Amino acid sequence: MTKKIAIVLAGCGVMDGSEIHEAVLTLLAIDKHGAIYQCFAPDIPQAQVINHITGEEMQGETRNVLIESARICRGKIMPLSEYMPQDYDALIFPGGFGAAKNLFTFALDGPDFTIDPDVKRAVLETRQHNKPIGALCISPVLLAKLVEGVTVTIGSDKSVAAAIKGPLKARHTVTNHGELTIDEKHNIVTTPCYMLNASISQIAQGTDNLVREILNRA
Amino acid sequence: MTKKIAIVLAGCGVMDGSEIHEAVLTLLAIDKHGAIYQCFAPDIPQAQVINHITGEEMQGETRNVLIESARICRGKIMPLSEYMPQDYDALIFPGGFGAAKNLFTFALDGPDFTIDPDVKRAVLETRQHNKPIGALCISPVLLAKLVEGVTVTIGSDKSVAAAIKGPLKARHTVTNHGELTIDEKHNIVTTPCYMLNASISQIAQGTDNLVREILNRA
Repeated sequence: MTKKIAIVLAGCGVMDGSEIHEAVLTLLAIDKHGAIYQCFAPDIPQAQVINHITGEEMQGETRNVLIESARICRGKIMPLSEYMPQDYDALIFPGGFGAAKNLFTFALDGPDFTIDPDVKRAVLETRQHNKPIGALCISPVLLAKLVEGVTVTIGSDKSVAAAIKGPLKARHTVTNHGELTIDEKHNIVTTPCYMLNASISQIAQGTDNLVREILNRA
Repeated sequence: MTKKIAIVLAGCGVMDGSEIHEAVLTLLAIDKHGAIYQCFAPDIPQAQVINHITGEEMQGETRNVLIESARICRGKIMPLSEYMPQDYDALIFPGGFGAAKNLFTFALDGPDFTIDPDVKRAVLETRQHNKPIGALCISPVLLAKLVEGVTVTIGSDKSVAAAIKGPLKARHTVTNHGELTIDEKHNIVTTPCYMLNASISQIAQGTDNLVREILNRA
C-alpha cells in the first residue's frame, strides 16, 4: 500500500507563508521515497503580506492562505477543514514565519499564541488516530502547545527554546543541521531546518531525514 | 574557485511566475554540487495574477515580478538590469508559464512574442562572453528566438516544437524525463521538466542533470 502524507501549508514565502524550500523539499522527499502527498491549508486571510526584499509589510494588500499555498503544489490543494486523519498515514508541518503567523500566532503574540481551529483539530485528531506528526523549523512550537509534555527541537535558538520549556511546559532538545528529535511516546518527529543558518542542501538533508523517519512510523 | 551561477526568475508560481519546484530544485542542485547562486528578476509588473486553484485571473490584482520572485530565494535577489555576465560563470532560466508571460510573451502571443529588454540583454551578453546558458521547461523557446540555429528541447509537445522549428527557425529534439539536449556549438543546455507530465522527483533529476552539465562547462 502506497503511504499518503498530508502536508499543511501556510501561504507561499518564508516571511508571510510557508518557507518554500522546506515545503518543496518535503514534497520531493515524500515522492522520492515512494509515498504520495496531499497539501492542505486553512481558507483564511494571511496575517500579513510581506515584501520579501525589504522585509516590510505591503500596506493594503490582502491574500488568502489557501490560494497562495496552492502555488507551492501547482494547484492540487484542499481546504484544511476537509482533512480526515483516517485517510492519511501521517501529517507534516513545514515551517516559515507564516506558519507561526497564519496557522498559529507565536510570531505575533509569543507564548500566549492562539491556534487556527482547523489546525488544532488536524493535530488533535491525528493524535487520536495514533498517526505520526512531523514538524520543521518553527512549527514544533505548535506541537509544544497542543501535546502535553512533548519533546521537540527548533535547533538552538535560546529564546524560542525558553518559550517551549517555560510557558509552553514542553521539552526541547538542541539539534544541528539535518538532525531529528524523535518523541517516541507521542510519535512526533521534529527538525530545525531554517531555524538554523542553513544552506538549501542542509534543508534537503533535514526534510529527507524527517520524511524517512515519518514513513517508517506510518 | 567556486563557480557562481545566475538564475533568472519570473515571479513565484507556475501559472503566473516561475515554476517553484523547478526553481528551488535548480538552487538545490547548484548548492549540492559546490557552486553558489544569485537570483535575478526584471523589476516589472506581472502580466497576470492567477488563482492557482481555479486557474482564473484575479481581477484587479497587480504584483511585481522582482518582489514576488524574492519569495523563492528568501529575499536575496537583484534586479536583472544589474546582471553582469563577467561576474558569473553561467546563466539558467527555470520554467513556468510566468516565464513565458513575464520574461517573454510566448504564452500570450505565440511565436511573434516580444522579450523583456533586460532578459534579451542578459542572454546576448552571456553569449558574447561564451558562457553556458541553461533553460528548463518552456524557457528554451526564448533561446530559440535569440540564438540563431540553436537546438533545444521542450520535451515532446508537438505544437511548441512546431513553433520552434517553424516560425522561430531553430531546431528541436524530443526528450523524456531528466534528459538533456546539449547544443555544443552554442553552449546551450535544455531539459523539459514540467513540459512533460512529471513527478517532482523527475524534476529533481532534470535540474540535477542540467546543473551538472552547466557546471562542467562553466
